[in-house]
Amino acid sequence: MVPELHIIGITGIGEVQEGADLGQLIVAAANRQGTPLQDGDVVVVTQKVVSKAEGRVISLQDVQPSPQAQELAERLGKDPRLVEVVLRESRRVVRAERGVLITETHHGFVCANAGVDASNVAGEGYVSLLPRDPDASAETIRRRLEELTGAQVAVIISDTFGRPWREGHTNVAVGVAGMSPFIDYVGQTDPYGYVLRVTTMAVADELAGAAELVMGKLSRVPASIVRGFQFQPGPGNASQLVRPAEKDLFR
Amino acid sequence: MVPELHIIGITGIGEVQEGADLGQLIVAAANRQGTPLQDGDVVVVTQKVVSKAEGRVISLQDVQPSPQAQELAERLGKDPRLVEVVLRESRRVVRAERGVLITETHHGFVCANAGVDASNVAGEGYVSLLPRDPDASAETIRRRLEELTGAQVAVIISDTFGRPWREGHTNVAVGVAGMSPFIDYVGQTDPYGYVLRVTTMAVADELAGAAELVMGKLSRVPASIVRGFQFQPGPGNASQLVRPAEKDLFR
Repeated sequence: MVPELHIIGITGIGEVQEGADLGQLIVAAANRQGTPLQDGDVVVVTQKVVSKAEGRVISLQDVQPSPQAQELAERLGKDPRLVEVVLRESRRVVRAERGVLITETHHGFVCANAGVDASNVAGEGYVSLLPRDPDASAETIRRRLEELTGAQVAVIISDTFGRPWREGHTNVAVGVAGMSPFIDYVGQTDPYGYVLRVTTMAVADELAGAAELVMGKLSRVPASIVRGFQFQPGPGNASQLVRPAEKDLFR
Repeated sequence: MVPELHIIGITGIGEVQEGADLGQLIVAAANRQGTPLQDGDVVVVTQKVVSKAEGRVISLQDVQPSPQAQELAERLGKDPRLVEVVLRESRRVVRAERGVLITETHHGFVCANAGVDASNVAGEGYVSLLPRDPDASAETIRRRLEELTGAQVAVIISDTFGRPWREGHTNVAVGVAGMSPFIDYVGQTDPYGYVLRVTTMAVADELAGAAELVMGKLSRVPASIVRGFQFQPGPGNASQLVRPAEKDLFR
């Protein structure tokens, strides 16, 4: 049998408003384009529409920067109001140099600007924040999809992160529901009898990246279906993807 | 139109021997399973079979560890012969603590054990090394695929790397030919008129990760076809993915 995977972008979701029922929008759009959800699908949703539905969009005009934010903004050449928002979203500054502000968010994600982002948000001076609890957001969407379609699916909320050592960004999972974010090969034997000792694949991140290839950044495809991937169903979340600080060699 | 991507694993390539014509093996296997290569395909090949074809497999029995390797091995609880090989493959040690040896390879990749790996290699005590020049390896395969099929394809050589801050491994591109490893949105305008300032997507890494979802680690699927992705054709290589040390905040 030929192992095969399909990634199907979901078009026609339209502009997502605060309070929107994302699960319903996804189901309706998938049905309209003739690709209804099926058991075993992984539905990848971009952070941006989840944040919009949850009202996690703010106007920088309403932000009063603290002295600390002003000082940091000056040093980095950034908007002090943006820096203020980033600091509020963060528990720790990891790097602040050469115009780059990398922080650890309250969720534990290490990323530029705590995931605060001005792209693909309506209105000048508006920025989107990461969902407060992206794993809970993913679980809410997953339940709604199941309720509406009866299909057992997993849900991943994706965002675009940079990384050390390598140029360019990739999409990773910031929220996961209905699957383990990993496939664990530790203790399994390869075809040559070698027992794998260290390989745990972060498949939720690979799924998020794979979906990005279909969604792109400019084409209003805020969700997609990955069909044919044998994930490990059951409880699982993106918090498991956060390496505990005490195990991390690079903080 | 529904944006869609297919990822097709190539089965039946069989055990790859030193000197093997990988391009020919891939074309034959893809044809046998009824999924011949097409214009615009991205062919992702795992590092392991490329290294085998190039004879980049060595027996640790033949390795004489230096005093430096012995000292480091003792400290990390590793095989001194493995550490010796890792040091030979590296231009710099990035971290050596808690049983983990992260180095910068001669290519500039920062990864555990310089990519030296005992899994999926025949023979006890044998390890595979990264190809000497994975971009050249990718280009050799790409030309051969074009020669045999007439199809204009891109080739990515993938390997499994860890990363800071996040648990689990993902596959990334260590060799690229026939495409840019990036899609660059800098200066483009989102649907709301916001000019994107920083987003360059490392699509070669996302493609490598996507292909891993089909190939897995234990099932002898050392190559796959990603079909339907609009890459930017032309020259491009994985060296472009290596962030120059002077631009890197984490070395």
